[in-house]
Amino acid sequence: MQKLEQIYEGKAKKVFKTDDPELLIVDYKDDATAFNGLKKGTILGKGVINNQMSNRLMAKMEKAGIPTHFVRELSQRETLVKRVAIVPLEVIVRNISAGSFAKRYGVEEGIVFDQPTIEFSYKNDALGDPLLNTYHALALKLATAEEIETIKNYAFAVNEVLKAFWAECGVTLVDFKLEFGKVADGSIVLADEISPDTCRLWDAKTHEKLDKDRFRRDLGGVEDAYAEIMKRLLDHDAQ
Amino acid sequence: MQKLEQIYEGKAKKVFKTDDPELLIVDYKDDATAFNGLKKGTILGKGVINNQMSNRLMAKMEKAGIPTHFVRELSQRETLVKRVAIVPLEVIVRNISAGSFAKRYGVEEGIVFDQPTIEFSYKNDALGDPLLNTYHALALKLATAEEIETIKNYAFAVNEVLKAFWAECGVTLVDFKLEFGKVADGSIVLADEISPDTCRLWDAKTHEKLDKDRFRRDLGGVEDAYAEIMKRLLDHDAQ
Repeated sequence: MQKLEQIYEGKAKKVFKTDDPELLIVDYKDDATAFNGLKKGTILGKGVINNQMSNRLMAKMEKAGIPTHFVRELSQRETLVKRVAIVPLEVIVRNISAGSFAKRYGVEEGIVFDQPTIEFSYKNDALGDPLLNTYHALALKLATAEEIETIKNYAFAVNEVLKAFWAECGVTLVDFKLEFGKVADGSIVLADEISPDTCRLWDAKTHEKLDKDRFRRDLGGVEDAYAEIMKRLLDHDAQ
Repeated sequence: MQKLEQIYEGKAKKVFKTDDPELLIVDYKDDATAFNGLKKGTILGKGVINNQMSNRLMAKMEKAGIPTHFVRELSQRETLVKRVAIVPLEVIVRNISAGSFAKRYGVEEGIVFDQPTIEFSYKNDALGDPLLNTYHALALKLATAEEIETIKNYAFAVNEVLKAFWAECGVTLVDFKLEFGKVADGSIVLADEISPDTCRLWDAKTHEKLDKDRFRRDLGGVEDAYAEIMKRLLDHDAQ
């Protein structure tokens, strides 16, 4: 598999073409941004952790019947993935109030919901990724009703698998962001990454934050938190 | 029916107790506000128009099988309504892109949707009435799943009746805001008002705005627009 020219550089990843038009190489960076790019920094070693963690979690999703873009890990920071057309919806699933939910609706963090919530944002940096609902997504022709239904079902299924897995690691899954894409045949697969950049993960006992909120909120110990969450995953999988 | 003490004064209406604990008197003012109260003004005669228009439209809703809080008109500005506990959700139905939808999602005004959209805002001035979806409303315990389903069904039914009625008056129904409440037995009824304050109404041929956007956007001819839309309704009903 040949790594050809770079076709995209995002906030946390670069993407390269390969000699197969249906496959791309993702290269994870240590760069971190928050608040729609207003805050910038570096989390040393993050790229390695997020690459390896996301791949292991994507493999668990595949095992649970949720198709993903993951093909195989190429190096510490590089992964081969299926080329997808990203559906321009950021999908957020929440089990516990935190972050923008708590702020937007004026409630404290840490309220455990009776049922998980799901929400869509229109993936559009210039507009600040505004919240929208299924009716809006259809009116804006961002996806079909069938695609949205599939995405909802996959997202809730990811939540069940991920929540159970992290619970076994002594970690509470608070919320997370997913992105989905369409592969060559038009079917929907889970894309992007699953990592402490995209999930809120709290220590189940102490409620200590083991995710990017340590960076967003200047809590310190950012690298240690990423290392700790990776260690828990590896310890679990080694058992 | 005795008008007793005032129990509430909102942006456009006052509400009074009566000698029947299940009935209230609403008194429509000429005061107009926009942008969550940041813009204030007066639209002469608006209270009379909105009271009479809303009552006529509410009566049409009742006729179509949609229960409302309307009991009977008492005077030019006063109406007897059922006392309700307002469900803290503002319900917006849209047929055509305009206003906050166009701004939020970066699209022009005037796009006719294939299907109407519905959205909920959390009725909370301090938070700026933030957008939310059904999952959020349930997580925040603002209503039950059954109540939300009922509200959605009523809102879409209101849209069908209202759209057809205004079309007969040469008016295009762009979007509108509804509020619902629970009466003593817990059942959901349409409350608040249906007027040029709460609907976007465009002349079907010229697309001239005949609603509160003339006030919001300093377009002039505010009073004339309210008078024109009332005249069309009265002319229609006189036929």
